[in-house]
Amino acid sequence: MAMYAGVELGGTKCICILGSGPGEVIARELLPTQEPGMTLNAIGAVLQRWNSPAAPLTAIGIASFGPLDLRHGSPTHGRIGPTTKHNWAYTDLGAYFRQRFDVPVGITTDVIGAALAEGRWGGARGLRDFAYVTVGTGVAVGLIHDGQPLQGCHHPELGHARIARAAGDEWPGHCSFHGACVEGLASGPAIQARSGVAAADLPADSPVWQLVAHALGQLAHLLVVSVAPQRILIGGGVLSHRAQLFPEIRRCLSASLNGYLDVAAVNESLEDFIVPPGLGADAGPLGALALAIDTHKTIAEGTAT
Amino acid sequence: MAMYAGVELGGTKCICILGSGPGEVIARELLPTQEPGMTLNAIGAVLQRWNSPAAPLTAIGIASFGPLDLRHGSPTHGRIGPTTKHNWAYTDLGAYFRQRFDVPVGITTDVIGAALAEGRWGGARGLRDFAYVTVGTGVAVGLIHDGQPLQGCHHPELGHARIARAAGDEWPGHCSFHGACVEGLASGPAIQARSGVAAADLPADSPVWQLVAHALGQLAHLLVVSVAPQRILIGGGVLSHRAQLFPEIRRCLSASLNGYLDVAAVNESLEDFIVPPGLGADAGPLGALALAIDTHKTIAEGTAT
Repeated sequence: MAMYAGVELGGTKCICILGSGPGEVIARELLPTQEPGMTLNAIGAVLQRWNSPAAPLTAIGIASFGPLDLRHGSPTHGRIGPTTKHNWAYTDLGAYFRQRFDVPVGITTDVIGAALAEGRWGGARGLRDFAYVTVGTGVAVGLIHDGQPLQGCHHPELGHARIARAAGDEWPGHCSFHGACVEGLASGPAIQARSGVAAADLPADSPVWQLVAHALGQLAHLLVVSVAPQRILIGGGVLSHRAQLFPEIRRCLSASLNGYLDVAAVNESLEDFIVPPGLGADAGPLGALALAIDTHKTIAEGTAT
Repeated sequence: MAMYAGVELGGTKCICILGSGPGEVIARELLPTQEPGMTLNAIGAVLQRWNSPAAPLTAIGIASFGPLDLRHGSPTHGRIGPTTKHNWAYTDLGAYFRQRFDVPVGITTDVIGAALAEGRWGGARGLRDFAYVTVGTGVAVGLIHDGQPLQGCHHPELGHARIARAAGDEWPGHCSFHGACVEGLASGPAIQARSGVAAADLPADSPVWQLVAHALGQLAHLLVVSVAPQRILIGGGVLSHRAQLFPEIRRCLSASLNGYLDVAAVNESLEDFIVPPGLGADAGPLGALALAIDTHKTIAEGTAT
């Protein structure tokens, strides 16, 4: 029986899981994210323990915070890029795990991983083109195009798209690079900076939520006119327990497109076009597992990675 | 010898060409774009004449104004969508040519066609991921991803992306759907509406050009954080003979990204990242020819279209 290990490497914690899908998780371990060496060794020890002679690992999937070098054929594929996370910049995740485990190792970003999991087991099953948006400490977007993660010379960073502002809103935004990009307007820290209250504690009737919905509606507009997904899933901590935002985001998208484009998904079934994820908070670790499965399948089929 | 026919169906004129590439154009005919029936019959007559028994056509490529239904497997593939062009809405280009010619017929938008031509013969040779932007009566974007035109449930319509405004610019824009989208700020009619002067006659030192460059720089920012092309080609009537705009568009992109993203194309060789097209005004008809060649190749290889 195939045995897959998935690791979601997050900014504050890592989740390692062993299994083959949402209903078949054999083991799960939570580790704090600390200095890179210490953290990777702790993850490596968990995976070594799981890699038993009687039931060896088939493949490993790592879904990590980014930015990551994911360019096909890059000599530094799987290496973390410039990041403000202490000491993590240029940590080569690919090299670490490939040197220690004699099985296929797949690496992608946490949000692309979550998109893969949603496509395989969650709210995007059966779709070839969809977007997974997470709104939390930052805003990140994973794109699946024709069944595969989409990336050109970099993975998508649509949280840093600069957008049209809501009428009358001149707050400068909270992104240190772009001010009022999507992340600078809709992330948890942006909400807190604007309102003075943690996003989780902000009352449902705060006008700030309307501005968050506007920013996410603008992001949806950009997705429609660029990659035109069949569905947009929006998850992450900021939106959990905030179901009332979804009708508002849909309304903002519809108002923004203003009847342009003959797209059935948008014009006829908006309730199915912008939806919460199907796997909830498990999309992250399950994404790492989905990547392990995909990586094994790709190599088993003899396709170049 | 293979004989390809390409038709660029534009809003005011159609260009039919016969040949196999930029250096091998055997015949070229210009027709006015009038009512759909009359126009298609005139094009059909040209192609019939070219389809001689001694040298029959190998394949036909149609690169048309949009929006077009280009969804794989759609029963109305190749049909024009809602358009303000008199009587052209829902004209089924695919059906027209497939019923009359017993050769493979490829259909795509004018801008995707131009992108294909630039990739095959022009300013994007050897690249797998690039964008072709045309700035004229409208603003349209063709995306090539992994060597193929990119589209989800609709072809890209990034001219209708709403963007962050230049500081202090509150002109409402000229797009009837979105006001100040890229097209509503940077197209020829937008420039004329704002300045009172046709774009071709606007002095090089008009401050309006700075705002046009800002809008195109914002479009480039959106391209970088979404599909991350290896290069962005920007052509079309508004920018021809306006070479001085390119350094300004590059500067606007660089200022907007503000050091975010470790992308060599953007950070190290911006002069090669945003460039004019290599084929100039011929990108349109050559795009139709490139599509004919690709369509023949795809069918010859037995791949599903």
